[in-house]
Amino acid sequence: MLYIIGLGLGDEKDITLRGLEAVQKSQKVFIEAYTSLLSFGISSDGLSTLEKLYGKSITVADREMVEEKADDILLEATSSDVAFLVVGDPFGATTHTDLVVRAKKLGVDVKVVHNASVMNAIGVCGLQLYRYGETVSLPFFTDTWRPDSFYEKIQRNRKLGLHTLCLLDIRVKEPSLESLCRGKKQYEPPRFMAVSVAIEQLLEVEQMRGENAYTEDTTCVGFARLGSEDQLVVAGSMKQLLEVDFGPPLHCLVIVGDTHPVEEEMLDFYKLAKKQGQA
Amino acid sequence: MLYIIGLGLGDEKDITLRGLEAVQKSQKVFIEAYTSLLSFGISSDGLSTLEKLYGKSITVADREMVEEKADDILLEATSSDVAFLVVGDPFGATTHTDLVVRAKKLGVDVKVVHNASVMNAIGVCGLQLYRYGETVSLPFFTDTWRPDSFYEKIQRNRKLGLHTLCLLDIRVKEPSLESLCRGKKQYEPPRFMAVSVAIEQLLEVEQMRGENAYTEDTTCVGFARLGSEDQLVVAGSMKQLLEVDFGPPLHCLVIVGDTHPVEEEMLDFYKLAKKQGQA
Repeated sequence: MLYIIGLGLGDEKDITLRGLEAVQKSQKVFIEAYTSLLSFGISSDGLSTLEKLYGKSITVADREMVEEKADDILLEATSSDVAFLVVGDPFGATTHTDLVVRAKKLGVDVKVVHNASVMNAIGVCGLQLYRYGETVSLPFFTDTWRPDSFYEKIQRNRKLGLHTLCLLDIRVKEPSLESLCRGKKQYEPPRFMAVSVAIEQLLEVEQMRGENAYTEDTTCVGFARLGSEDQLVVAGSMKQLLEVDFGPPLHCLVIVGDTHPVEEEMLDFYKLAKKQGQA
Repeated sequence: MLYIIGLGLGDEKDITLRGLEAVQKSQKVFIEAYTSLLSFGISSDGLSTLEKLYGKSITVADREMVEEKADDILLEATSSDVAFLVVGDPFGATTHTDLVVRAKKLGVDVKVVHNASVMNAIGVCGLQLYRYGETVSLPFFTDTWRPDSFYEKIQRNRKLGLHTLCLLDIRVKEPSLESLCRGKKQYEPPRFMAVSVAIEQLLEVEQMRGENAYTEDTTCVGFARLGSEDQLVVAGSMKQLLEVDFGPPLHCLVIVGDTHPVEEEMLDFYKLAKKQGQA
């Protein structure tokens, strides 16, 4: 049996009782490193909090291992219980869908233990989840690569009065371009996109396109460390949020569409002026 | 302190460790009855499984109580710890947003414990969550009330190649029309919309509109008891799903947009012909 277990967003205590039971009865436990490195602050020797609480030794599986050695993991799952731990919910990322497809093809039984993910936890800001349009991903711009296909999607959502969740780029264990040219893999240091960088890129694209999909006065909500004890949620115009230090990762951003009165009331609690007044 | 704690989708074991800790240190524990009655099979004397596991007595708060007596609940939370348990994630429904707004106005500290909800657990069928358009709600049609504003939304999503999550009507403790006329509240028996009823209503509206937003050959995914041990997920055309007995509540439905290869591979596992072949 392969258990794919969502860990939720905060720390080791966000696992469900069902998930913990599955971990405890598994002979082998893997944790996906791609996002857990950032959200749980897990380093190669920093698993101890999780290992202590779960009572199991845990193997960190980086993206290469998941993609290249999936069959080894699955082979173990044919004859014993294997737990694969994932930050958030198991189906937030394509990689895990792929793992399930491979498992099913090999005839390995799969059980999924759900948990909170960014996709539903953003509800905390008060904007109703059923009033979101298509989600967009904002990649880090480079000198030569500045893709802006998100622009039309945001524009479309806003014309319909819908909110837009922007997932911000995470780069963990990316081979550097230089090392690829040399034929020997070396990795860039991990990077995550901050709210301010996201807004700068959004405004740069708006300036180029000039179709007023949004402006620096458009209301947004910035999130940092969503679901953690020290999460930060701030609502304000793009211009205002540019000045906010959201601190450590992970960040995400919502571009607000038309709001209903209850949504408006909740947003007010997170608005910048109010927050400063309270401080 | 007011803790608003998501219970997840399955049963009492889907609470997180963080949530359980908060329940255990609360002086008073309420559970929202609106959906928990159906999903957890909780009747007035059927709370014992939860109460046993959580080690606390729990008060069932129906919608009237939440809406009319919120201030009593909040008053208790000013001087002690109060836990308010909610099926799924706390921000799936407007009612809870409203409770948070009231709490903040009264100066009551609020902590949210997130969990899985329909909005992210539908990821299990393999359709990527960032490729969904606006969510729609399908209300029970009556002889005189057949609202169809969902039609344009589905049409729009499909034109863009996006998937559409249809939330199906739940009617718990609705005062009957007759009783309202008599001025004395009596309640209709609880009803939940089955996948087949949802599809019948969708096809009726398509026939009236005739704009080919979808047809009986459009691929959909029907879900029953999502996140439970006995969940059922079946993919097929509307016509095919009409014939499937999805069993007890809750149900929901996804109308599939354009699919990527990985999405297609996952959907295949849930397709009807395949399932029958395996049986």
